[in-house]
Amino acid sequence: MRIGLLAAGAAMALSTAAWGQPMTGFAPASAEKQRALEQRFDAEISPRAISERLKLMSAEPNHVGAPHNIKNAEYTREQFKAWGWDARIETFDVLYPTPIEVSVELTGPTRHKATLTEAPIPGDESSKQGPNGLPAYLGYQGDGDVTAELVYVNYGMPADYETLARMGVDVKGKIVIARYGGGWRGLKPKLAQEHGAVGCLIYSDPADDGYGEGDVYPKGSWRPDNAFQRGSVMDMPIYPGDPLTPGVGATKDAKRLTREEARTILKIPALPISYADAKPMLAALDGETVPSSWRGALPITYQTGPGPAVVHLVVKSDWKLETLYDVIATLKGKDRPDEWVVRGNHRDGWVLGAEDPLSGHSVMMEEAKAMGALLKTGWRPSRTIVYASWDGEEVGLLGSTEWAEAHAAELQKKAVLYVNTDSSGRGALDADASYSTRRLLNEVAAEVKDAETGADVRTRKLANVQVRALGPDASDRLKDQAKAAAKGEDFAVDPMGSGSDYTPFVQHLGIASMDIGYSGEDEGGVYHSLYDTFEHYDRFADPGAKYQAMLAKTVGRVVMRTADAEVVPLAFAGPAETIASDVEELKKLEEKTRTRAETVNRLVAQKAFALADEPRKGWKAPPRQDAGKPLDFKALDAAVARLKASAAAYDARSRAASGLPAGKRDQLNAILQGAEQALTDARGLPGRPWFRHLAYAPGLLTGYGAKTVPGVREAIESRRWAEAQDYIGRTAKALDRYADAMDRASALIRS
Amino acid sequence: MRIGLLAAGAAMALSTAAWGQPMTGFAPASAEKQRALEQRFDAEISPRAISERLKLMSAEPNHVGAPHNIKNAEYTREQFKAWGWDARIETFDVLYPTPIEVSVELTGPTRHKATLTEAPIPGDESSKQGPNGLPAYLGYQGDGDVTAELVYVNYGMPADYETLARMGVDVKGKIVIARYGGGWRGLKPKLAQEHGAVGCLIYSDPADDGYGEGDVYPKGSWRPDNAFQRGSVMDMPIYPGDPLTPGVGATKDAKRLTREEARTILKIPALPISYADAKPMLAALDGETVPSSWRGALPITYQTGPGPAVVHLVVKSDWKLETLYDVIATLKGKDRPDEWVVRGNHRDGWVLGAEDPLSGHSVMMEEAKAMGALLKTGWRPSRTIVYASWDGEEVGLLGSTEWAEAHAAELQKKAVLYVNTDSSGRGALDADASYSTRRLLNEVAAEVKDAETGADVRTRKLANVQVRALGPDASDRLKDQAKAAAKGEDFAVDPMGSGSDYTPFVQHLGIASMDIGYSGEDEGGVYHSLYDTFEHYDRFADPGAKYQAMLAKTVGRVVMRTADAEVVPLAFAGPAETIASDVEELKKLEEKTRTRAETVNRLVAQKAFALADEPRKGWKAPPRQDAGKPLDFKALDAAVARLKASAAAYDARSRAASGLPAGKRDQLNAILQGAEQALTDARGLPGRPWFRHLAYAPGLLTGYGAKTVPGVREAIESRRWAEAQDYIGRTAKALDRYADAMDRASALIRS
Repeated sequence: MRIGLLAAGAAMALSTAAWGQPMTGFAPASAEKQRALEQRFDAEISPRAISERLKLMSAEPNHVGAPHNIKNAEYTREQFKAWGWDARIETFDVLYPTPIEVSVELTGPTRHKATLTEAPIPGDESSKQGPNGLPAYLGYQGDGDVTAELVYVNYGMPADYETLARMGVDVKGKIVIARYGGGWRGLKPKLAQEHGAVGCLIYSDPADDGYGEGDVYPKGSWRPDNAFQRGSVMDMPIYPGDPLTPGVGATKDAKRLTREEARTILKIPALPISYADAKPMLAALDGETVPSSWRGALPITYQTGPGPAVVHLVVKSDWKLETLYDVIATLKGKDRPDEWVVRGNHRDGWVLGAEDPLSGHSVMMEEAKAMGALLKTGWRPSRTIVYASWDGEEVGLLGSTEWAEAHAAELQKKAVLYVNTDSSGRGALDADASYSTRRLLNEVAAEVKDAETGADVRTRKLANVQVRALGPDASDRLKDQAKAAAKGEDFAVDPMGSGSDYTPFVQHLGIASMDIGYSGEDEGGVYHSLYDTFEHYDRFADPGAKYQAMLAKTVGRVVMRTADAEVVPLAFAGPAETIASDVEELKKLEEKTRTRAETVNRLVAQKAFALADEPRKGWKAPPRQDAGKPLDFKALDAAVARLKASAAAYDARSRAASGLPAGKRDQLNAILQGAEQALTDARGLPGRPWFRHLAYAPGLLTGYGAKTVPGVREAIESRRWAEAQDYIGRTAKALDRYADAMDRASALIRS
Repeated sequence: MRIGLLAAGAAMALSTAAWGQPMTGFAPASAEKQRALEQRFDAEISPRAISERLKLMSAEPNHVGAPHNIKNAEYTREQFKAWGWDARIETFDVLYPTPIEVSVELTGPTRHKATLTEAPIPGDESSKQGPNGLPAYLGYQGDGDVTAELVYVNYGMPADYETLARMGVDVKGKIVIARYGGGWRGLKPKLAQEHGAVGCLIYSDPADDGYGEGDVYPKGSWRPDNAFQRGSVMDMPIYPGDPLTPGVGATKDAKRLTREEARTILKIPALPISYADAKPMLAALDGETVPSSWRGALPITYQTGPGPAVVHLVVKSDWKLETLYDVIATLKGKDRPDEWVVRGNHRDGWVLGAEDPLSGHSVMMEEAKAMGALLKTGWRPSRTIVYASWDGEEVGLLGSTEWAEAHAAELQKKAVLYVNTDSSGRGALDADASYSTRRLLNEVAAEVKDAETGADVRTRKLANVQVRALGPDASDRLKDQAKAAAKGEDFAVDPMGSGSDYTPFVQHLGIASMDIGYSGEDEGGVYHSLYDTFEHYDRFADPGAKYQAMLAKTVGRVVMRTADAEVVPLAFAGPAETIASDVEELKKLEEKTRTRAETVNRLVAQKAFALADEPRKGWKAPPRQDAGKPLDFKALDAAVARLKASAAAYDARSRAASGLPAGKRDQLNAILQGAEQALTDARGLPGRPWFRHLAYAPGLLTGYGAKTVPGVREAIESRRWAEAQDYIGRTAKALDRYADAMDRASALIRS
């Protein structure tokens, strides 16, 4: 239908608006009732209330253990109660290092002592709270007092160390300085440590995060020269949450590892610094001039060192147990109380945390308030709705992980969907999500209006994908998505990695999840700094809370539709196609990786590098690589083919599902509730059993960024060929289990 | 053979060394004699003499009309004579604007007067000559006295103006400031003028040409903050040479246009400035923050304007006729005096011109000296060798163009090959060349040893191509070349555009040409500035003149082999394959251009841009584009197929050619001498009839950079579909004529 329209009426604006359209999981009559409910829900959403709540909650520092963070937990609980929810605080006791001493000094050939504090900014009242917040600090770094020559390692990612090795630059015994970007923060000190460095500095280069992006705060929104990015460097790709209690809730009586036994705590000291402090240190480096892609926007010649710059770095922390305060609020389902829709946003911030996370937290509370109002008019969800205000996300997804681990069995049995938000921005809709939620999200997006353009969010997203795909740097994935968008197909959801509280739900427990928000048009620059204030947010991120209100309407619909649907509103045909193309990508990757390894080995053997490199520089040839043999993809191909057929069959039949007799519907809902868990493997991913999802996971070497078919992909990327073959089999079995679930669901409808 | 070796012995180093190998155009016995001659030639090449001559000739400013440039002409002539050559000075009288007044001032909101002079640098004696050289100046800009708001236009290329239009920024009535790079200098004021700007500044951004690249002079080699890049902005893609005498030599009695009639002189004033002077001007701009690819390395937020920065720009020149001094030296051929091998390098520089051009000029003289020594031992070339020291290259290829135009008929009848050099660097061999010279160049490169690695130059080049192809930004073209290199195939030559004195020979007259040099490992940064001194060159570009000596050996071999070969040493099979792949590229370009236009038009009609763009910014949708209809490539496909067959046939038979009886050999040589002219078209390229080559030409919108199959390619790029179809036919006919020549040559050998 949509294709025909587009082809026929080129002059017509894109549109996907939706009254009278089918609503997955609902019979037509129920769909119209649901839409009426949503209209009433929307009427309760107040941008002003969102904004006032944000201001209130971000008035004082909100890190783990800060009095105001605890006060906010109590406030959140009381608000939920006042709106008619069951609400309580659930606590956990986790290892939480609090900084005692932090210091960085360039001691030679020139001297410069880093400030490591952020001064208040005129016109930003909130920024006066600086002295009460955390100084420059990276959670779960390793403490130490070291003095060594400095080496600049660009983003400090694996490819950067390969380049350094080619240049003959070794970081052993040195302190590295890496710029933010290119991959997750926590990998920088981890890889530095693995390469023998004794300390790690991370700074915000103005090219990536400062005046390069735009005028700096307070003239514009961007990072001023004295601001730094705090953050966690816990080795979360191994497991997130309390380092002492992997896999179990950090309850009072939990069995705990010692600090030394915990694999996720680094061994070397690390600190973040501002670009004002980084500049004299980088300027004091000599050695190789860096490749052009390594250059930032400081007015210096970027060079690698080592030295002559020498740095003295000290970090000392208090490694005590600290209490986390999760607020858990419930609306019990009237029909299916043991099927849960869980929705969360964290509450702790690095300092005041206005944008990150309280902008999203205030949205979440606004949804709860609006549902409370609906309760008073007699509505009650069919399934149970659980809202969670997580503590300790910033330092390692602590509050969500401990709660998910503590309630693992119950969640795997009951949770239908986990919906996450975090910072709330403005622009087009962005969603990292379980593929099976793609249709649901498109249906919702078609019924929420964009605050600026007046178009529905789905239409805007489809336009956005197509226009971005015209850009010179558009990826092949984006170009494919644009082609699909041109045909009016559902916009794609991105695969789930990590970076916020959905991680334990989808990656550890296999619960269908989504992480959504609006983005691309908020002006940033204050991430994890003192300047993430209400004043900054209201001026640059979402003036007037227009997009926060949209997010409340979007998430509210997702939650209420999932809670009220006669049949869990998941769909599988689109997702099966996505998995199929993920597998095709793998094959290309395998071919490319093998061919490249063979080429490198041939060129090494022929001493071609010595001939190609500038002879006076004394560069080293790269090491030989294991080129392996072609992998056998047959099992995966067969599983994908079956999955596509099973998914198409279920989706075709599911329209009849809401008319099923109650008993069969219960069985169907039970199958759908646990379907995503078929994609997990009890053994988990190689070397990190906590991560069990075989369709998408955060990369071991990307940290947050998603890898699709991760067991196979990461093995290929690292040329561990036997492991890749093993995970081809394991992934094929997971896809078979997933298809089994669909087949069982289809059979129920047909019979 | 080579393939087998590589496959068999992976541990063996690459090698293509060559005694006893075939030498194109020579019978085996003659080849060995030629190799012995080349050994004696090599023995005459003295790095020290090259260096001393360079120092002498770059001691004072050498711009057109400067006393020292004229003195150098006389010195060159006398040296050639002393070495046994016939040598004389040939003069032309050309319009040559000399600066009288240059001034740039930021008048608001802050004030800054640009220095426009380069101070001497301690330790660089030559740089004291500054006051005698040219100030900041761009040849053939339009003069004027203008005051207007400033707009930053990135590189000032067509895509940049498209981006500005999307952002709603208009340069009409403004002064633009563009950074160097992204395309030829002269396009920047030309496009600014076409878009209604009243003035143009061009500055060297430190990201592209300054501290971003490395430590600045004198600590390192790179451009210091007060240095600027002079240059020509004559509209050379229309025609180079004297603006008043297009197509004819600027002899005393030539018919001349008026200055107003000359199409290649701009109408608006333009000047180059340093980054020290650009910084306060760019910092004073407001408006849109630029896209990330537009940012340079100054420590500011790059914004477009217009304003509030206001600039006052004044340029006043003396537009008088000036005399050029070309030195023409000849060694008359003993067997074929009417077949010429022409070899040139220019002599004029922007200031002292040590690297550009005297480093290459000194190499050329060293070759002439060595040939002079061979003369004394009884050698005399079989064909005539003509060496040319060109004047006025910098301002618009004046000396070479006027000479080529004055002697057009004779050159088209006699010239077998034109060999060009310019600045001489260090590193791997680089060649822009007529495709038919590829084999010759590979044979020569296999017999010259790289000064640093000891490998032969061909082996080093093949290693270089393969290693560079592993890089993340490797182009598809480079990857294809690497695959060919892995099989031991000849390294490719790059298609010819413009940028030095080969232009009139290949582009206007259709004479097979090459422009060669060593590059990639010299440290630069002083291009067209006062600091292009002997001191800088000897310290950073080619210490000890090692690569200059290699270049003399390389060019000497090319010239002497071409002069002495029994049969003109061109080959066609490889080139025909290259043309075939150039045509395949065209088809992909056509498909992509049409599809993109259709997509843009659909998205414009659907108002998708308004939905995708940040609503508060008020960006404009792009204009609709003519998507045309699919082109008919049949004629070109047929011509390419025939060309491949004819080329393969000739190359197979040519091995027998040196054994032909003298009369037939004369006929064969005559065919080969003029073969490249088959690729020209008397009507020339659209809108610029001076450019006649249909296989490669400088782009109308790239200036120097080559476009292959330019008549078709540029029409597709600009969506002039009827013109593209027309030039498919014209190019097919040219290829047919080229194949005809090969067939006639083959027939001679067979019969």
